[in-house]
Amino acid sequence: MSTTLTLALDAMGGDNAPEAVIRGANIARKRYPTLQFVLVGDEKRLIRLVRRKRKLRERVSIRHTSEVVPSDMRPSQALRGGRASSMWHAIDAVKEGEADGVVSAGNTGALMAMAKLQLRTLPGIHRPAMASFFPTLKGESVMLDLGANVECDANNLVQFAVMGTIFSRIVLGLAEPTVGLLNVGTEEMKGHEELKSANTFLRSTNLPINFHGFIEGDDIAAGTVDVIVTDGFTGNIALKTAEGTARLVNQFLREAFKSSISAQLGYLLARRALKKLARRVDPRRHNGAMFVGLNGIAVKSHGGTDALGFANAIGVAHDMAVGGFNARIRDEFEKLNPGEIPGPASVAAGA
Amino acid sequence: MSTTLTLALDAMGGDNAPEAVIRGANIARKRYPTLQFVLVGDEKRLIRLVRRKRKLRERVSIRHTSEVVPSDMRPSQALRGGRASSMWHAIDAVKEGEADGVVSAGNTGALMAMAKLQLRTLPGIHRPAMASFFPTLKGESVMLDLGANVECDANNLVQFAVMGTIFSRIVLGLAEPTVGLLNVGTEEMKGHEELKSANTFLRSTNLPINFHGFIEGDDIAAGTVDVIVTDGFTGNIALKTAEGTARLVNQFLREAFKSSISAQLGYLLARRALKKLARRVDPRRHNGAMFVGLNGIAVKSHGGTDALGFANAIGVAHDMAVGGFNARIRDEFEKLNPGEIPGPASVAAGA
Repeated sequence: MSTTLTLALDAMGGDNAPEAVIRGANIARKRYPTLQFVLVGDEKRLIRLVRRKRKLRERVSIRHTSEVVPSDMRPSQALRGGRASSMWHAIDAVKEGEADGVVSAGNTGALMAMAKLQLRTLPGIHRPAMASFFPTLKGESVMLDLGANVECDANNLVQFAVMGTIFSRIVLGLAEPTVGLLNVGTEEMKGHEELKSANTFLRSTNLPINFHGFIEGDDIAAGTVDVIVTDGFTGNIALKTAEGTARLVNQFLREAFKSSISAQLGYLLARRALKKLARRVDPRRHNGAMFVGLNGIAVKSHGGTDALGFANAIGVAHDMAVGGFNARIRDEFEKLNPGEIPGPASVAAGA
Repeated sequence: MSTTLTLALDAMGGDNAPEAVIRGANIARKRYPTLQFVLVGDEKRLIRLVRRKRKLRERVSIRHTSEVVPSDMRPSQALRGGRASSMWHAIDAVKEGEADGVVSAGNTGALMAMAKLQLRTLPGIHRPAMASFFPTLKGESVMLDLGANVECDANNLVQFAVMGTIFSRIVLGLAEPTVGLLNVGTEEMKGHEELKSANTFLRSTNLPINFHGFIEGDDIAAGTVDVIVTDGFTGNIALKTAEGTARLVNQFLREAFKSSISAQLGYLLARRALKKLARRVDPRRHNGAMFVGLNGIAVKSHGGTDALGFANAIGVAHDMAVGGFNARIRDEFEKLNPGEIPGPASVAAGA
């Protein structure tokens, strides 16, 4: 795509907003020379922040909003009372065709609710899910949901399996991605009722899903399947536990290299390879979860991210837009016979 | 304690039984020169396996059983139909005073149900929990439950907070361990109802608990709190996700050191420090989850463990017994006014 691409940034969302957002946009504008931004938030503060960034300034427009969705606001409250917020207006910019996608580091539940209301879901989809890539021993896997839906029933899980399959087919280019349901064991009787019903349904469905069965926590990094399906509570804990563990091992590694003179020399010799490794496991590199199942591009950044992490979330939205992924996902959904996408009754019947 | 200590081993439990169990016992007998074993399982197979291990042979007795609890058997089935199994008899050896503790790599739910029935729980405790140590940036934390209770209500979570506090006071020697509830965010409104009720109760209770509040997945490795309380489903996923991630980073590290000649030289110089690091993050080192809240010592090893992992689980049971931890935990529980240990009604009222 050679035309300009524009992303709306919720400049006030996240722990380090608006500074991290603006600095993140400045990193991203170097990476994507034709990308434009609509910065949504407090005009005065935003102008002050971009004033000295001449090259960024040329590529932004500002949409003023005076309110922010607090991180502890319930989604239902945000829908009622948050329509003057930066988050609402950033999504609105996508709805109005002013931007090709939106990136926010704000309140996840509110973002999900507002995006669903304004952008609508794809045909047959009840709840969009947050999806992201995980590095694995075999390459990369997609995991969903990562926190948009804290409580999920069997029907939601089956829909995530459909969405994850289509998503990884298009974004990772896999012909028949394998799908696993995250559980505490691989035997049929393990886990809670929702998991068992979803498992029974997926084993017998005619949907174009290459279902592997249950997988366990250590299968995520092992790359046992291409698509990991789980509820938003478990997915969020797994994602953040993995990030924390990677950081811990990194820290232990740093200590190991300081522990003796010969280890220090070893570090100097291996430095280039180790820096590459550090980048490979840097959680910021994988920042930016995509909402799948929405009629539009919306990317959620970690709330606590820094500028580099936010720039990566912008990159995710950029790639989604350039690749026309959302239109392709929508096309694939439309190809499914609408009757094939399971509703609550059909999954319950399969249980 | 200078007297001999005896542990009952469920020799037939786990994916690699009985070989991994016997080889694990052989590693452990070198580490603990006075430790004795009751091997419970198929006598013929066990005799064949210990025949050529002269030093181990001198320190084992065999209790013959012909049945095994399958890994896909429901706990209720195991209680009804599993009384001729190696697992049941290994626990029975503790009940009868023949052994000071039991170690099994078999079916978790069955082990929990059988141990609860035979050994009984501590006064006021409804459900024992599986606890283990996690390495953190600050040292070590205790996490519970790791899979004994897949579904937990607010009352169970509060009881885990009590058990975890007492456990880490005694085992880690902390005067006032901090306790956190694992959630998808730290704001009060986050998570499902059970978590919110437990949070409300713990914030206002007079129980001797140093309650920190909600924590997130990345707080586990960060060491934000000393005791991490969660339901068995989430705990199991978090534990295994962390293990898988550590293995992944290790593999990436190995690749990094092979990526150039200078990195290879660097590896040679830093080898000793790196081997120490590899041991530090080796999941087998942390194998062996303790059942807390039971009137006896029972340790659950990973089902898929090898001999070294099983030896470490034996080590956990050994340390629990030598330190008299279970008696001390029981004493601490008895010091609590029984009315102080919350039952379902009191937690619900606190919500």
